[in-house]
Amino acid sequence: MTRIDLNSDLGESYGQWRLGDDETMLSLVTSANIACGFHAGDPSTLLETCRGAAVHTVRIGAQVGYHDLTGFGRRFIDVEPAELTAEVIYQIGALDGLARAAGSAVSYVKPHGALYNAIVHHREQARAVVEAIRSYNTTLPVLGLPGSAFLKEAERAGLIVVTEAFADRAYTPEGTLVSRREPGAVLHDPDVVAQRVLRMVTEGVVTAIDGTDVHVDAQSVCIHGDSPDATAMAVAVRALLDAENVDIRAFV
Amino acid sequence: MTRIDLNSDLGESYGQWRLGDDETMLSLVTSANIACGFHAGDPSTLLETCRGAAVHTVRIGAQVGYHDLTGFGRRFIDVEPAELTAEVIYQIGALDGLARAAGSAVSYVKPHGALYNAIVHHREQARAVVEAIRSYNTTLPVLGLPGSAFLKEAERAGLIVVTEAFADRAYTPEGTLVSRREPGAVLHDPDVVAQRVLRMVTEGVVTAIDGTDVHVDAQSVCIHGDSPDATAMAVAVRALLDAENVDIRAFV
Amino acid sequence: MTRIDLNSDLGESYGQWRLGDDETMLSLVTSANIACGFHAGDPSTLLETCRGAAVHTVRIGAQVGYHDLTGFGRRFIDVEPAELTAEVIYQIGALDGLARAAGSAVSYVKPHGALYNAIVHHREQARAVVEAIRSYNTTLPVLGLPGSAFLKEAERAGLIVVTEAFADRAYTPEGTLVSRREPGAVLHDPDVVAQRVLRMVTEGVVTAIDGTDVHVDAQSVCIHGDSPDATAMAVAVRALLDAENVDIRAFV
Amino acid sequence: MTRIDLNSDLGESYGQWRLGDDETMLSLVTSANIACGFHAGDPSTLLETCRGAAVHTVRIGAQVGYHDLTGFGRRFIDVEPAELTAEVIYQIGALDGLARAAGSAVSYVKPHGALYNAIVHHREQARAVVEAIRSYNTTLPVLGLPGSAFLKEAERAGLIVVTEAFADRAYTPEGTLVSRREPGAVLHDPDVVAQRVLRMVTEGVVTAIDGTDVHVDAQSVCIHGDSPDATAMAVAVRALLDAENVDIRAFV
Repeated sequence: MTRIDLNSDLGESYGQWRLGDDETMLSLVTSANIACGFHAGDPSTLLETCRGAAVHTVRIGAQVGYHDLTGFGRRFIDVEPAELTAEVIYQIGALDGLARAAGSAVSYVKPHGALYNAIVHHREQARAVVEAIRSYNTTLPVLGLPGSAFLKEAERAGLIVVTEAFADRAYTPEGTLVSRREPGAVLHDPDVVAQRVLRMVTEGVVTAIDGTDVHVDAQSVCIHGDSPDATAMAVAVRALLDAENVDIRAFV
Repeated sequence: MTRIDLNSDLGESYGQWRLGDDETMLSLVTSANIACGFHAGDPSTLLETCRGAAVHTVRIGAQVGYHDLTGFGRRFIDVEPAELTAEVIYQIGALDGLARAAGSAVSYVKPHGALYNAIVHHREQARAVVEAIRSYNTTLPVLGLPGSAFLKEAERAGLIVVTEAFADRAYTPEGTLVSRREPGAVLHDPDVVAQRVLRMVTEGVVTAIDGTDVHVDAQSVCIHGDSPDATAMAVAVRALLDAENVDIRAFV
Repeated sequence: MTRIDLNSDLGESYGQWRLGDDETMLSLVTSANIACGFHAGDPSTLLETCRGAAVHTVRIGAQVGYHDLTGFGRRFIDVEPAELTAEVIYQIGALDGLARAAGSAVSYVKPHGALYNAIVHHREQARAVVEAIRSYNTTLPVLGLPGSAFLKEAERAGLIVVTEAFADRAYTPEGTLVSRREPGAVLHDPDVVAQRVLRMVTEGVVTAIDGTDVHVDAQSVCIHGDSPDATAMAVAVRALLDAENVDIRAFV
Repeated sequence: MTRIDLNSDLGESYGQWRLGDDETMLSLVTSANIACGFHAGDPSTLLETCRGAAVHTVRIGAQVGYHDLTGFGRRFIDVEPAELTAEVIYQIGALDGLARAAGSAVSYVKPHGALYNAIVHHREQARAVVEAIRSYNTTLPVLGLPGSAFLKEAERAGLIVVTEAFADRAYTPEGTLVSRREPGAVLHDPDVVAQRVLRMVTEGVVTAIDGTDVHVDAQSVCIHGDSPDATAMAVAVRALLDAENVDIRAFV
């Protein structure tokens, strides 16, 4: 029986400002990348999302990012590696505290936004994030992009590495993501996306933007939940995988 | 042999801005109340101070406070109890993460500044802080003012309670602190302060502002380290206690 | 012909987080209380809202508040008066800069949230806000609650004072607002609210919570726009006033 | 008679944290680059520094920077140009408000730290800063590095451009600054620095790091004031220029 993990970004509200439908998404995914307060997520929101994850037995991942509320962590910041290490430890510890108070714990780490993108190539920042995770807990898996500097450094440091694919993103024939600046980079039709995820999971392939099939190696699929449309897509993906008897289960 | 713990506020620098002489203070005290990033302490500073505490085998306490960098946590904020609980868990977890990365751990909690003062009387916020500590780790002691609502609520919740006296503050004949607004509220002569601490520790009394002796019940004495004068005072206190063979040891 | 100003809180999004429908509200009100970045409003949002206000010839007011993004300015902060004065000048100047870049200017000041509520009674903070406005521009009117310490201090300092009533709030027989903690404190039916505003404007009375008529003296009526329901209410108020030939015009 | 402006970074304290000796520096320089709250400078500090500048008739410049207190504005942030424009207008307006409350006004703009360095080459961010200044006040001069993209874009936009040299930095034979990573990049001897500044001002040359003379075209010289050593250097520069009858005067 084929098995897959579904992950999504949650806990991204902040005080008065609400973002995403955490409650619905927690009933659909198996791993929740919960913000840690640096790009989103005030402590009350995070505690509530951790409690929801505990209730739904969804695994909690620390979604660490740059310290940038205004930019939602989507702007590259040229942080010194030693500072980045300390910032990432701080975030993991803070979320782990809330997760433990909710009866769960941080089970993995997935970087967010511009940090996620930067450490695909930026080796010093990649190492800094790995060093943070390693010094916090050497048994904590990392979730990231196949082939990224981040996953390579994590592997070298002896961390457990988990690869992910993206449900609603177009792929190049080389198996990399089509840049968001290109037309067609993001898919919007829930049924199309659900079918793509099914092929990723059962066949290990996805149709690239040029129509060819390309190999995709993913132990987890990332689906978005930050808008009503996104939630509808998540529902469609989940429904199709359930119908096809895919075993949807956390990788941890 | 008489025994006492000496505690001091550390880790209160922030990025480019330096405050206090952590290195010197870590060689003088046995318990370090380390800031948690809400009123002071960027992650790099906190990690460095935690490493210093680990090297000097000084116990690390989470110095939790209001979220107010501009006001250094010295302005009362009317936070809802549920929000305050989440904010305190977040802070303890963050510092514990850094402390663990430094080979140590958070061993107790001491509120800071306006929060410390508020929960002497503000029962709802006192309960909120206690609830945070209890939900994080029921075995974590709290350090606070004798007779405060905070310590009463902590005791009721089953937490270990540790009382403290202040090395450089004047006391009323009733054993409470003279308000900082009154003349003579803060003592500045290192030798006078050292002698007062010695009497607190060996006799359990201190000379009140009216000249009478008043009982002081403290398992720890708080000394400041945020200025060259403060460091000199700490040196004098430590030297006198050492000379008098007082056993200076962490309460944990 | 009867004349009234309609004011609403705008510019309260922050980065990725959206709040309220500024575009719609700018077509309904005559005065926009625009956030200044301390409780809400990143610079890009504020510039965009100022541009919208300029296009709709809606007057721009500086909606100054406590420095508290997490609490959306809704938590009282015990700021020293001198610090509060500096914080309020900073906010007015910042918004005025953006308003000028948009071809308009700050035309009045209205405090926000917990600051608004605090300075109904807190004379020192009231004076601090007045001092800020006076030192920035002595000709800038202030918008506030009739009878508040804030308006009294503003009058004493020679500022132009403008009173406001609330479209969707219940009033006591004494003409004060029913506390939000009481049942029935907030009205939700757009037609009821519109009829109340009409009476406020044309007769100077409102039906109090006990059914009696109470005098209301307001040169402006505050309507909310932070939810679809609120926008519907604003539409109803505007439509009824227009139908009854009320002259809806900025007080400035 | 030779004429020069001396500029320095001031207002860089934050709340409890003090940095630099603003009072002394205000008696030595003619132009104060005052922080605007994004990399340093809480409103109270800024108001106090503006008042000091007004008393000493020192010109106030808005020292705009990235929004990054933790990093003191010294980390490049990949901000979208439109957002950067709004952020810079916000900062200029905020400081101008405080300066006006102090009886003065913002007379020029000088970017800070990583933003200063970025817009030597980063044309989009350079344009964004220029656009901010232009939309705030087309008559506001900018102070910057000769040959930088920033000054070129400012000139193209019709702004008044003022060039600066650095008192304590080594120059290459090409007239650019020696990178701080190179040995000898920063000079520490007050007398040597004072003599270099005198030659810059009277002869328009400075001895490069290879011993050759290189042309320096500067209408202002930047001197640091963020440490006791820096203040001593500023005193030496000022004393020598005064002794040599150089006319030290603001460029505005």
